[in-house]
Amino acid sequence: MAPALEVQGGETVSLNNVSDATIRSRVTVIGSGNWGSVASKLIASNTIKMSNFHDEVRMWVYEETLPNGEKLTDVINQTNENVKYLPGIKLGKNVIADPDLENAVKDANMLVFVTPHQFMEGICKRIAGKIRADAEAISLVKGMEVKMEGPCMISTLISEELGINCSVLMGANIANEIAVEKFSEATVGYRQNKEAAERWVHLFYTPYFIVTAVQDVEGVELCGTLKNVVAIAAGFVDGLEMGNNTKAAIMRLGLREMKAFSKLLFPSVKDSTFFESCGVADLITTCLGGRNRKVAEAYAKNGGKRSFDELEAEMLQGQKLQGVSTAREVYEVLNHRGWLELFPLFSTVHEISSGQLPPSAIVEYSEKQPRSF
Amino acid sequence: MAPALEVQGGETVSLNNVSDATIRSRVTVIGSGNWGSVASKLIASNTIKMSNFHDEVRMWVYEETLPNGEKLTDVINQTNENVKYLPGIKLGKNVIADPDLENAVKDANMLVFVTPHQFMEGICKRIAGKIRADAEAISLVKGMEVKMEGPCMISTLISEELGINCSVLMGANIANEIAVEKFSEATVGYRQNKEAAERWVHLFYTPYFIVTAVQDVEGVELCGTLKNVVAIAAGFVDGLEMGNNTKAAIMRLGLREMKAFSKLLFPSVKDSTFFESCGVADLITTCLGGRNRKVAEAYAKNGGKRSFDELEAEMLQGQKLQGVSTAREVYEVLNHRGWLELFPLFSTVHEISSGQLPPSAIVEYSEKQPRSF
Repeated sequence: MAPALEVQGGETVSLNNVSDATIRSRVTVIGSGNWGSVASKLIASNTIKMSNFHDEVRMWVYEETLPNGEKLTDVINQTNENVKYLPGIKLGKNVIADPDLENAVKDANMLVFVTPHQFMEGICKRIAGKIRADAEAISLVKGMEVKMEGPCMISTLISEELGINCSVLMGANIANEIAVEKFSEATVGYRQNKEAAERWVHLFYTPYFIVTAVQDVEGVELCGTLKNVVAIAAGFVDGLEMGNNTKAAIMRLGLREMKAFSKLLFPSVKDSTFFESCGVADLITTCLGGRNRKVAEAYAKNGGKRSFDELEAEMLQGQKLQGVSTAREVYEVLNHRGWLELFPLFSTVHEISSGQLPPSAIVEYSEKQPRSF
Repeated sequence: MAPALEVQGGETVSLNNVSDATIRSRVTVIGSGNWGSVASKLIASNTIKMSNFHDEVRMWVYEETLPNGEKLTDVINQTNENVKYLPGIKLGKNVIADPDLENAVKDANMLVFVTPHQFMEGICKRIAGKIRADAEAISLVKGMEVKMEGPCMISTLISEELGINCSVLMGANIANEIAVEKFSEATVGYRQNKEAAERWVHLFYTPYFIVTAVQDVEGVELCGTLKNVVAIAAGFVDGLEMGNNTKAAIMRLGLREMKAFSKLLFPSVKDSTFFESCGVADLITTCLGGRNRKVAEAYAKNGGKRSFDELEAEMLQGQKLQGVSTAREVYEVLNHRGWLELFPLFSTVHEISSGQLPPSAIVEYSEKQPRSF
């Protein structure tokens, strides 16, 4: 029996009906880091079983030469393993690594984007006009920027640069846990094309990776970014050793501000989206583990006397924390629009991480009343 | 400036307007365990400052003789400390311990119930007809029973037995953390009387204990009970060492079933209640710490080979886990009404804890499709 899938929280569709297209879909994954490799593995385990997809999943790999002199793509294609970014996991024989971006995308009608967000604009410009006219895209890219005039959604960037429809997939997805087939969930956010959303659900869904589609691309995509600001707050609480009670309260207030901020920017955003995996579940995962939480904990433990820049350099080998920069971007939007008082948690996170307030300010809410939304 | 309080998520009321009654309110707390003592401390810190309340907070204490031969009430009144259930914390000089239940309640118009739930019926029967006609009640009692014909709400029991209005207060409230004034939140659920709800908010609210009122007594009260079933599931995931990703997914599915179950039983229950402290925040706290989670973790670590009864006896000194009995009660309701398939998490928790399924079944959801609500 084909499992029934949930779409939009309430409706259930049978997998058998997902696509009656006589022409089989071809999938290309653009990106081959940790999450990109896991996504390729998930997808490849499905395409090989389903008659409406070509078995082959092409994975664009930014070519690297490994210490032993071999090319990364050659090793992936010989061993079925991304030895650099997902060692020890077989991707499936039907995953074909391709170092040529234009070649990788030219035949696909389903494009899965999963690269660091700063590369997205360049990638789109390189492939614009070189993809199939009937292509559909999905973005797994987290960490869009929140600019003064509003968030720069990756799904919008893809749609505008390539002239195609773009959905998103977000959720409580620690790549290494999904790689070893631990149970988890994800949310597909789509704009209007419900059939396309069903195809994406179909492509990713496995017994250990439950995918639900909601018609709320902005809500889903904003969850993936804003949760990092809340994780910084949760890290402060951990560093101050305030206990689970306070941490739960801060996570709840954070979820509320994520919802309120998203709805102020996009009135179409739905409350129910925040109950999905991309909302509450991803928030929980990120506030329990994750590097934003970890560095913020260290910051609070040091009483704010060592800067985030310093701690990041020490703890993250030069990587920058998304939460700190997102908090600053969100703060600029709030300040610009006169909304600072409506978002005491978001604004306090930035004021702490920029050294204007001590870490203990994270729980000094009573002076920031009213918080009515 | 009086802080503004949130009522019902959207409206803000000034504390100055909460009560214009010329007659001051008198508060009695019925119960003096760990949470009852903390509640008395919170309340007493407010009544002493506010002109519309008598300073004195009477606290009914089930009299006990301490090992040194002294009576517990005498020690509380001499030292201002509940040396047995909240040692090391001053309750406030205006908290008066009273071993005589009828005497304790007779002058109060605000009755705060905070005893183990199995004592509630007896207490109500003892004081029925012996309280003020204008009295209002609030229940902080968690762990109502879920009977076949529906949940036996403690707030309903109080209303019916005493003929008075009853609100509830629930939330992510670890008593010992609130006792040392760590930041947290709580939710007041009220039925119709918004003014009474405002008085309760007023009575409990402090800068470190933020209280929000919502008109959804059943939703708030059910959260306080059903979260324990989810905590058992979270404990299984911990015992199986499945990681934060899976745990977050299970917590989310649990929150969804809490919401769906509450709404099926009481169509008036609001989705938004589950975003309040009583919902998502209490769930997080309970699934991170808490004894339900802890014993369930041990159960899964032992592969289900040692029974809950045995583990409870060993780990809890004879206390019984609320989550296990609530899971059984919920299962009976689901089974009786033909809803088992709609609630795979709730039903699986009972099937595991009663030894019918192995702990690993907690993540075997794909076979339990559809889950559409």
